[in-house]
Amino acid sequence: MPFELTREYIEQLKEAVKSEDEKTAQKMIVDLHPADIAEVFGEISNEEAKFLYILLDGEKAADVLIEMEEDDRENFLKILPGELIAKRLIDKMESDDAADVIGVLSEQKQEEILQSIGDVEQAGDIVDLLSYDEDTAGGLMAKELVMVNENWDMNKCMREIRKQAAEIDELYYVYVVDNEDILKGTLSLKRLLVSRANAKIKNICNADVISVRTDTKSEEVANIMDKYDLVSLPVVDTIGRLIGRITIDDVVDVIREEAEKDYQLISGITQDVEPTDNALLLTRARLPWLLIGLLGGILGAQVISMFEENLKIDPKIALFFPLIAAMGGNVGVQSSSIVVQGIAAKIIDLTSTARKLLKEISVALINGIILSSLCFVYNIVFKTSFELTITVSTALLAVIIFASVFGTFVPLALNKFKIDPALATGPFITTINDIMGLLIYLGIGRLFYDIF
Amino acid sequence: MPFELTREYIEQLKEAVKSEDEKTAQKMIVDLHPADIAEVFGEISNEEAKFLYILLDGEKAADVLIEMEEDDRENFLKILPGELIAKRLIDKMESDDAADVIGVLSEQKQEEILQSIGDVEQAGDIVDLLSYDEDTAGGLMAKELVMVNENWDMNKCMREIRKQAAEIDELYYVYVVDNEDILKGTLSLKRLLVSRANAKIKNICNADVISVRTDTKSEEVANIMDKYDLVSLPVVDTIGRLIGRITIDDVVDVIREEAEKDYQLISGITQDVEPTDNALLLTRARLPWLLIGLLGGILGAQVISMFEENLKIDPKIALFFPLIAAMGGNVGVQSSSIVVQGIAAKIIDLTSTARKLLKEISVALINGIILSSLCFVYNIVFKTSFELTITVSTALLAVIIFASVFGTFVPLALNKFKIDPALATGPFITTINDIMGLLIYLGIGRLFYDIF
Repeated sequence: MPFELTREYIEQLKEAVKSEDEKTAQKMIVDLHPADIAEVFGEISNEEAKFLYILLDGEKAADVLIEMEEDDRENFLKILPGELIAKRLIDKMESDDAADVIGVLSEQKQEEILQSIGDVEQAGDIVDLLSYDEDTAGGLMAKELVMVNENWDMNKCMREIRKQAAEIDELYYVYVVDNEDILKGTLSLKRLLVSRANAKIKNICNADVISVRTDTKSEEVANIMDKYDLVSLPVVDTIGRLIGRITIDDVVDVIREEAEKDYQLISGITQDVEPTDNALLLTRARLPWLLIGLLGGILGAQVISMFEENLKIDPKIALFFPLIAAMGGNVGVQSSSIVVQGIAAKIIDLTSTARKLLKEISVALINGIILSSLCFVYNIVFKTSFELTITVSTALLAVIIFASVFGTFVPLALNKFKIDPALATGPFITTINDIMGLLIYLGIGRLFYDIF
Repeated sequence: MPFELTREYIEQLKEAVKSEDEKTAQKMIVDLHPADIAEVFGEISNEEAKFLYILLDGEKAADVLIEMEEDDRENFLKILPGELIAKRLIDKMESDDAADVIGVLSEQKQEEILQSIGDVEQAGDIVDLLSYDEDTAGGLMAKELVMVNENWDMNKCMREIRKQAAEIDELYYVYVVDNEDILKGTLSLKRLLVSRANAKIKNICNADVISVRTDTKSEEVANIMDKYDLVSLPVVDTIGRLIGRITIDDVVDVIREEAEKDYQLISGITQDVEPTDNALLLTRARLPWLLIGLLGGILGAQVISMFEENLKIDPKIALFFPLIAAMGGNVGVQSSSIVVQGIAAKIIDLTSTARKLLKEISVALINGIILSSLCFVYNIVFKTSFELTITVSTALLAVIIFASVFGTFVPLALNKFKIDPALATGPFITTINDIMGLLIYLGIGRLFYDIF
C-alpha cells in the first residue's frame, strides 16, 4: 500500500533530525519512494532536508531531487555546492530531468555545474536541451533512447539494445532509423520478444509512426499522446532525424498544469498558487483581478448615477440591481467556459462562428424566457408596480441574451488572435457583464417608465 | 505528421458516401488511425458512419469503436446487430475496452452480446469487469496481463511471456506472483532483455511494487500513477492476488475528466456538455445554477427592501450595490477555488483548519485594506457624502473578510463530510456572498448613518 504522510511522522522525523540521530532518521526515510521523500522535504525546513539528504545513496538522492516541487527544489539546490550537484546528482539523471533541475538555477550556477559534469556527452545533451523553449516538445524530451538501424537483423539489434538500454531508466519502445538517422519506425518490446533472430528490422518494424518536431507546442504534444494513447513519442528535427523522445509521465504533468491554469483564470487568480503558499504570495496572486472588480464596481456606480433621476421616481428599481448583475455574470461565465473548454479539448467544430452564436442565442432564449417568467410571477405575487415588473423581466431576458453572446464571442475572438481564450473567463466576463447589465436594465427602465 | 480534420475533407467524404462510391470512401479512411476515424464519425451521421464502418477490417473497426466519444458510440451501436458486435468487434478487444463498450448498452443488448461471444473466458472476464463500480480501480483495469511465477527461471519465463504476450496489445511490465497468485513483484522489460537465461525470477524481480485494490477510487489511482510516474499499475483483490492492471492511457482520461468536472462546477454547469451539443442539452446543463442565481437575486431584493427607510434617507447607497456584490463574489470564488485545487492535487497540508482560516484572514486583510483605501480615495475625489464614503469602505473590508472565510470554510467542511468540495465553488459561493454582502453593507450603513 502507498505511503501516507502524517503529522506524527513529520514530528518524529523532525525530532530525530534535531537530536542528530542519524540512525533513526535514516531508518525512517531510506525505504521510502523518492516521490514520498520529496513530499516529506516539502514539509520540513531546508536545513532539516539537507541533514536527511546526505543519508541517501546517490541514485535515490538524484530521484528525490527530480520529484521535488519546483520551488522547494530551487531553494534546496541553493544550499548544495555546485560540484556535488554535478558529480553526485546530475550524473545519475536522464538528460531531460537534469535539464529541468539545472534550468531553474542562476546562469552562474548553471555554468559551474555544467563544467563539473564528468561525462562530456551528457553535459552536451543538457546544454542542447536547455536551448529549447520550455513549452515545446524540445523542452519536454529526453535525449536518451534506444535506436536501431533498419538494415540490421534481430541478432545485432538485440545486442545493440542490451548495450543502449543500460543507460536509460525505462524502455518502452525501440526506434528504427535509416543510415542518416531519419526516423523510420518503431519496434514494440512485444515484437522484440516474439520475433525470430534472423528477421530483418525493416520488415518487422511498425512504419506507421507518429512523431512531433522539437518546436511542437507542449499542449499539442499532450493532445497527440492522449488521443493516440501513446506511452512514448519520438521527437525529430526539421529534416526528420530522430533526436529525442517524450514519455507519458512528463505529459501528464503538462495536462495537469494546463487544467490548473484554466481553473485559476476562471477563479480570478493570476499565478500558480497553492493553499500552503505564504500570505504575501497569495495576496499577489489575487489582488490584480480584485482591482479590475473594483474598477468595474466603480464604473457600475457611475452608470447608476447617470440614471439618478429614474431612481428618484421609483427607488424600488434598486432592489433588482444585484439580481440583474448576478444573472449577467453567471450566464457570461457559463458561456465563456463552455467555449474555452471546447477549444482546450480541441473538440473539432466545423460550424462557423455565426452558427455558434445563433445556437448560443437559442439557449439564452430558452433560459431567459423561463427565468424572466419566474421573475414576473414573483413580482406579481409580491405586488411590485406594473412598470417595474415589466422592466425587470424584459431586462433580465435582454441581459441573459447579451451575456451569452458576449461570453461566447470574446473567447472565440481571443483564440482567433492567438491569445489564450481562458483570459476571457471569470472576473473579466463577470465585471463587464455587471456594467452592461446595469446599463441595459436602467435603459429599459427609463424607456418603460416613460411609456407607461 | 498527425492527421488534421478539415471541413473540406468531411464534405468530400460525405459526397463519396452519398454517391455510394466505396472505392473513394475506403481510400479516404483506410490509412487513418482509429482515433482519427472516430473523430470523423463524430462529424457525420450515424448512417454515413455505418456505410464507412463496414469498409474497415475487424481489428481497426474494433479500435475505432473504442476511440469514439461515449455518446457517439452509444448511438452508433444501436444500429449494429448484437451478433456482429460480439463476433466481429468485442472478440478483438481487451477486456477493459470491451466492458466499456458494452457497459453503456441496455441490459437486454448486453446479454445478447455476451451470449454471442465465442470465447467463454473473455465473456467471463467482461462480466467480472462489468460488476465493478466505474469510478474504481476495478472499473478501470483490464484482465489481460503477463504473469510469471517467482520460482521460474528466465528460460521458462521467456517462453511463457511469448505465449501470453500474443493476447495483449502492449506489454510494459511482466508481473511476478507466487504459487497462490499473490503479487510479489514486477519485471521491467529492460530487465528481461539484459538478464541471463538461468537467473531465477525471484532474484531479479523488483519486489518493491506499488499496487491498488479493486475498490480504490479512480481519483486515487490517478494520483498514485502520476506521483510515482507509473505506466502500468497492478490491481489486487483483498488478499493480494493479482487480478488485473491499469494502464496510463486510461488514467489520463480520468485526470482530464476530473479537471473538467471541477471546471464545470466553478462555471455553473451541472453536467458534461460540449459546445457541439444541441441547444436543449446545453440549456438543461445551465438552467439549474441560473435558478439558484435567480433565487439569490430575489433574496437580495428582499434584503434591500428591509432597508428601504435607509435608501430613502440616502438613495446614493444604491450606487454601490453592484460593487459590494461583485467584490464579495470574486473574493469568495478565489478562496474556494484555492481550497478545492489544493484538495484535488492532494497537497499535503498538515496545518489545522483554524490556522488555514487565520492565514486566509490575513490575506483578506491585506487585499481588503488596499481595495477599501482605493475606494475611499475615489469617494473623496468624487465628493461622496462622508457617511456614505465611510460606509462603503468599511463594508468593503468586512465583505472581503467574510467572503474569504466563508469561501475557505465551506469547501473544507464539505470535504470533511466526504462531499465533493468543488460543489462550493462558482455560482453557489457567488450567490450567498451577494446576499451576505448586501446585508453587511446595508447593516453597516444603518449603523453609521445613525452615528454621524
